[in-house]
Amino acid sequence: LKVFSLNSNIELAEEIAKVIGVELGKCSVSQFSDGEIQINIEESIRGCDVYVIQSTSSPVNENIMELLIMIDALKRASAKTINIVMPYYGYARQDRKARAREPITAKLVANLLETAGATRVITLDLHAPQIQGFFDIPIDHLMGVPILADHFKSKELNGDVVVVSPDHGGVTRARKMAERLKAPIAIIDKRRPKPNVAEVMNIVGNIEGKIAILIDDIIDTAGTITLAANALVENGAQEVYACCTHPVLSGPAMERIENSKIKELVVTNSIALAEEKRIEKILQLSVAPLIGEAI
Amino acid sequence: LKVFSLNSNIELAEEIAKVIGVELGKCSVSQFSDGEIQINIEESIRGCDVYVIQSTSSPVNENIMELLIMIDALKRASAKTINIVMPYYGYARQDRKARAREPITAKLVANLLETAGATRVITLDLHAPQIQGFFDIPIDHLMGVPILADHFKSKELNGDVVVVSPDHGGVTRARKMAERLKAPIAIIDKRRPKPNVAEVMNIVGNIEGKIAILIDDIIDTAGTITLAANALVENGAQEVYACCTHPVLSGPAMERIENSKIKELVVTNSIALAEEKRIEKILQLSVAPLIGEAI
Ligand SMILES: Nc1ncnc2c1ncn2[C@@H]1O[C@H](COP(=O)(O)O)[C@@H](O)[C@H]1O
Ligand SMILES: Nc1ncnc2c1ncn2[C@@H]1O[C@H](COP(=O)(O)O)[C@@H](O)[C@H]1O
Repeated sequence: LKVFSLNSNIELAEEIAKVIGVELGKCSVSQFSDGEIQINIEESIRGCDVYVIQSTSSPVNENIMELLIMIDALKRASAKTINIVMPYYGYARQDRKARAREPITAKLVANLLETAGATRVITLDLHAPQIQGFFDIPIDHLMGVPILADHFKSKELNGDVVVVSPDHGGVTRARKMAERLKAPIAIIDKRRPKPNVAEVMNIVGNIEGKIAILIDDIIDTAGTITLAANALVENGAQEVYACCTHPVLSGPAMERIENSKIKELVVTNSIALAEEKRIEKILQLSVAPLIGEAI
Repeated sequence: LKVFSLNSNIELAEEIAKVIGVELGKCSVSQFSDGEIQINIEESIRGCDVYVIQSTSSPVNENIMELLIMIDALKRASAKTINIVMPYYGYARQDRKARAREPITAKLVANLLETAGATRVITLDLHAPQIQGFFDIPIDHLMGVPILADHFKSKELNGDVVVVSPDHGGVTRARKMAERLKAPIAIIDKRRPKPNVAEVMNIVGNIEGKIAILIDDIIDTAGTITLAANALVENGAQEVYACCTHPVLSGPAMERIENSKIKELVVTNSIALAEEKRIEKILQLSVAPLIGEAI
């Protein structure tokens, strides 16, 4: 068994290696002068079960190509199995044709991984669980909810808790969290009363005087989650926490979070946080033990 | 027949469309906030023969992913054929395992294109013509030499011409050019007399008092070509021109070219030149008529 890390999330890879008690494999992943990726695997992997750790977070296209080229190199070097550990699966939101002539990039990525030579995939909280069916190789789909829920369980929260889904798409996830916390759920139901009229945040369920915990899978520009948090406070929630598995946090996300009514945002390290995103308000929990177990 | 351009070389795409007398198809290729590529094809292409124009030059990984996602979208929108016009084929230099555990990325790219759904490829001066064999779909391999040679033929060069290959790998190309110009050839034979001793530029063939035309397929960091030019002048060449099909021109290339003995560098527009590379010393010839004919 050999574990290699590419460039997207080296810290997590090191934690995973530690959890399973191996050293990270030696390989250098760099760029030629013109930006083409150069990979050198510096130890024999012939006949080995190889694990490659790479989230396809931003820069997503670089990270995908790095991964595909690494898989190609491993295949040609006679690896026995090539197991892709992809805590964050990029392009997962492009999982269907919502409009005419759209690509289904999540399926394309699955095909590319198989074509390159991947033999198994381990991933975490796919935006749509249906993406599992995009693969013809085994795929392990891990869940971040227990890690997030355990954090809130161990926290001394001073009051009644309600788990809130920021949209109807996330109700199943909120249910799972609520079960673990033995709490009720609520749902934010955004409605546009008429075309070209601002959306109204309608809250389904009782949140008054309660400690609300918002949960989503991905927080990207943080528009949905921060509007939801503010609506909860306006409607009488005592305080608001938020959590998600994948902290994409692009564009205006950081500013929105800092200026929002969210007391604490709890995320996992499926995506590495750049230095400027490591602020007090954001707590990052490790998925290394979870992934280590799956390996 | 529909022609679409992606982002790598829009100017060339417009020229090609003009040559074959069509308008470029409407599509927008942009990025979501997190850097994922978003493609909208804005006209029906059902049942059409579609041509997509994209060089996989820098940023190579972005450009490859753009192309793959576009192919996916076209396939799902029921295009009849999907023809990839790739004037510059990125990763062509990674065409074999030169050392243990290297990837063969040129083959990987071929597989990715086929997996996405390409049905034919049109390309220009592959770094190794063997890359044609990496495909199981038809591939048209066009040659830049006639365009470059015709330029020098039409130029009033005041003296005897000799075509020079900057290394032994390029002799066949130099021969083709020499035939068109009815000129002899010479070869630069770099030798390292002993390990850790500087290379010696040995010139095979007669260049004294002649007008030397250096030819290569790719000029990347321009180390080889500028050293060759200077060696030719030191060994008595009257003046030195240089030409290549693919002006990659990365890293120190521009500085080296400006400071070299090269009088004029002639390239094609297989790769678009950034504003700062459009200098007087570099002349860019169009491959649009050549590609238009192949379409
Ligand atoms: N990277 C992205 N950022 C924002 N929106 C995206 C992204 N990728 C896909 N989408 C869009 O998000 C929608 C899917 O999100 P959802 O409805 O939450 O599953 C689709 O309409 C996609 O076009
Ligand atoms: N983008 C690149 N820039 C510089 N060298 C490269 C690049 N891609 C591959 N190579 C190396 O260039 C060599 C092939 O060049 P050649 O001998 O001219 O065919 C191989 O050893 C590759 O490892």
